[in-house]
Amino acid sequence: MRLSRYFLPVLKENPAEAQIVSHRLMLRAGMIKQAQAGIYSWLPLGFKVLKNIENIVHEEQVKAGHIPMLMPTLQSADLWRESGRYDDYGEEMLRITDRHGRDMLYGPTNEELITDIFRSHVSSYRDLPLTLYHIQWKFRDEIRPRFGVMRGREFLMKDGYNFDVDKPSALHAYNRHMVSYLRTYERMGLQAIPMRADSGPIGGDDTHEFLVLADTGESEVFYDSDILNLKFGDRVVDYDDWEECAGIVKEWTTPYARTDETHDPALFDAIPEARRRTSRGIEVGQIFYFGTKYSEPLGATVQNADGKAVPVHMGSHGIGVSRLLGAIIEASHDDKGIIWPEGVTPFHCGIVNLKQGDAEADAACETLYASLVAMGLEPLYDDTNERAGAKFATMDLIGLPWRITVGPRGLKNGVVELTSRRSGESEELPPELALAKVAEIYAAR
Amino acid sequence: MRLSRYFLPVLKENPAEAQIVSHRLMLRAGMIKQAQAGIYSWLPLGFKVLKNIENIVHEEQVKAGHIPMLMPTLQSADLWRESGRYDDYGEEMLRITDRHGRDMLYGPTNEELITDIFRSHVSSYRDLPLTLYHIQWKFRDEIRPRFGVMRGREFLMKDGYNFDVDKPSALHAYNRHMVSYLRTYERMGLQAIPMRADSGPIGGDDTHEFLVLADTGESEVFYDSDILNLKFGDRVVDYDDWEECAGIVKEWTTPYARTDETHDPALFDAIPEARRRTSRGIEVGQIFYFGTKYSEPLGATVQNADGKAVPVHMGSHGIGVSRLLGAIIEASHDDKGIIWPEGVTPFHCGIVNLKQGDAEADAACETLYASLVAMGLEPLYDDTNERAGAKFATMDLIGLPWRITVGPRGLKNGVVELTSRRSGESEELPPELALAKVAEIYAAR
Repeated sequence: MRLSRYFLPVLKENPAEAQIVSHRLMLRAGMIKQAQAGIYSWLPLGFKVLKNIENIVHEEQVKAGHIPMLMPTLQSADLWRESGRYDDYGEEMLRITDRHGRDMLYGPTNEELITDIFRSHVSSYRDLPLTLYHIQWKFRDEIRPRFGVMRGREFLMKDGYNFDVDKPSALHAYNRHMVSYLRTYERMGLQAIPMRADSGPIGGDDTHEFLVLADTGESEVFYDSDILNLKFGDRVVDYDDWEECAGIVKEWTTPYARTDETHDPALFDAIPEARRRTSRGIEVGQIFYFGTKYSEPLGATVQNADGKAVPVHMGSHGIGVSRLLGAIIEASHDDKGIIWPEGVTPFHCGIVNLKQGDAEADAACETLYASLVAMGLEPLYDDTNERAGAKFATMDLIGLPWRITVGPRGLKNGVVELTSRRSGESEELPPELALAKVAEIYAAR
Repeated sequence: MRLSRYFLPVLKENPAEAQIVSHRLMLRAGMIKQAQAGIYSWLPLGFKVLKNIENIVHEEQVKAGHIPMLMPTLQSADLWRESGRYDDYGEEMLRITDRHGRDMLYGPTNEELITDIFRSHVSSYRDLPLTLYHIQWKFRDEIRPRFGVMRGREFLMKDGYNFDVDKPSALHAYNRHMVSYLRTYERMGLQAIPMRADSGPIGGDDTHEFLVLADTGESEVFYDSDILNLKFGDRVVDYDDWEECAGIVKEWTTPYARTDETHDPALFDAIPEARRRTSRGIEVGQIFYFGTKYSEPLGATVQNADGKAVPVHMGSHGIGVSRLLGAIIEASHDDKGIIWPEGVTPFHCGIVNLKQGDAEADAACETLYASLVAMGLEPLYDDTNERAGAKFATMDLIGLPWRITVGPRGLKNGVVELTSRRSGESEELPPELALAKVAEIYAAR
């Protein structure tokens, strides 16, 4: 993309309404614009990152054997009356009446609707196990929406639902979700720690939240620093292997890690003092096993191998897709702006032309641009007439992890400059080597 | 995907509620499930086609230089009061009140919101031309929703908005949209004819609808059969070339083609009789140039080259993404089920194992499956224990354009069967040649 043809309305001033850094930076980098309290338009740069995050979530869910579909945003109140949650849910549920006077609601979650689909179509244990998920906009009418996309009212969430014939199979689904979530966050450059959690209005006994450490997190968290050493890297997981998945879950849930809701000071104090950590965390996902809580009232049963009708065992599993943008920025930024992890960056590499209009510099930039595109990468080429300082400030603000700077002086010596946004370090290299290095960085991903 | 692990709830019976063939086939093929009147869940197979269609729309818009973003589903009533459309829109607008008593609505279209974004961030002609678009769920509270996804209440639409400094530039944007739309439909295997249309509540002078010919279409259409000979094929378009785009538009709008709303019998009768056609059509898109209709009331002005503030010239351009599934099926099916065009098919090739459990047949199917995946294609392998007839019926119903049938008898002779869903013709071939043929079909696309 050439910046002269893009829509990137960066702001020079800090917007007054933004209390936390991710909100401030998303507004300044021209990623979002507030439409109403807690409801945002995703401007082109923000939309690109949102799509990248959504794609990673899709890919990891499909790898785990979960099946994508899509439920509508609006739901019938009747189903929620059947489960008994219509009256429980309180004022956060946005209630709507259509032209015929029928009660509807903007879905805050989808246990009822997915269970209705299941009970209409599945009647035998032979069709199980089954995990369906979707990524769809949801609404919670927060009384005081704030922190930008971190606590918005209209938000994008991945929610998945497993249906299993019994508890052991449902617990394997739980484990599969934990593993796929950990991999999902790692690909986004995040370390999200699974913490034993409270189940809240979804219900259920087994539940873990995934928390990203950040000073602005809404929860106080307590953990054993050993957990920070755990990584997947290139490890290939066989999601059909119950023991392998259970082993990974054990590995990640053995070190102490809890939020203030479930914190147990006695257990915490048993950790060697040097490894005890207290911090703040941002919740970016949660998984639940809740057994037959919804299948019983909604009549979602299957015939088991003995020909007996049994209610299915279910769980639900969510990732806050739009919220993740905020969480990533909270975890990865500096005074100059955002620092995107390579896995989610909106453009792979920036190109800054120090002297737009100079025939040699223009030609070198065009060649770099075409080469990056030919490699399957997306460059953002600042081809405007802004001065160099302003171009650098914009690139730093929007946080592309790599930048190639091209100027007449360097070109005389046959070099361009390759700069890492994270380290700030620059290297002078012939253009071909700069390209090779960028290619190598992204090929490794 | 292996069918034994997929969720494909096909129906044997014709659902009573479906009046038209696309609705019936989408329900029978397990693509959608009604959640409430005019609101559908997209089951896995339907979701895959929806995504394929969405991706083609995105790709062709980006090629035309249009910039993707995303506006929220809910909008503030205040903006619609500013444009004067809040009271005009009638009962089709779903009006909502939040917990603080603020008036909102579920967006049926986005002229107001995009103009608000524009006026907040753009003030100079130097930032033009600019075309922003999104693909987002919309709601129109139809009094009698029917025909499945063809006239639903919650529907997915691509809507794009161009901002130009003057009328000639805006008319180039109009032409660019017409060209990109024609290419979009052609990639989906559809012939959509641009027809001069009425502007309705969007307003404006220049507007064309795109209609797909089908017996169940809601509009009566009149056209010169010459227009059916127009194709893009491999033709590359330079969207920056005003004359090229205008030339294509002229080519496609010169043969007579109108709906009953704009039909002119005198002009129609001037066509040689052998070329006069009357048919029915399904609307799958519409483009509008409406000048300053929204920019004036909403104060969206830019400074022009003379330093004078002028209201921008706008147009809006929509493609009915979810409706397209219905239109494609209406245009491409037979008694046995759907016939997907290769460009949108949910799986590229079906594999039917005639004797599941037979070691040789199983091994041959596995090899075919792995080879198709290695080619970057998505097969659907029916690895269930159903009898052959039921497997064929399901494959025909869900409409994959190509099927490879594997059985012990053929394997003894070293062959499998490759069948075209469209022609019904089968060919016996060694597995490698069947694979090569499927690869060739999709490589040509």
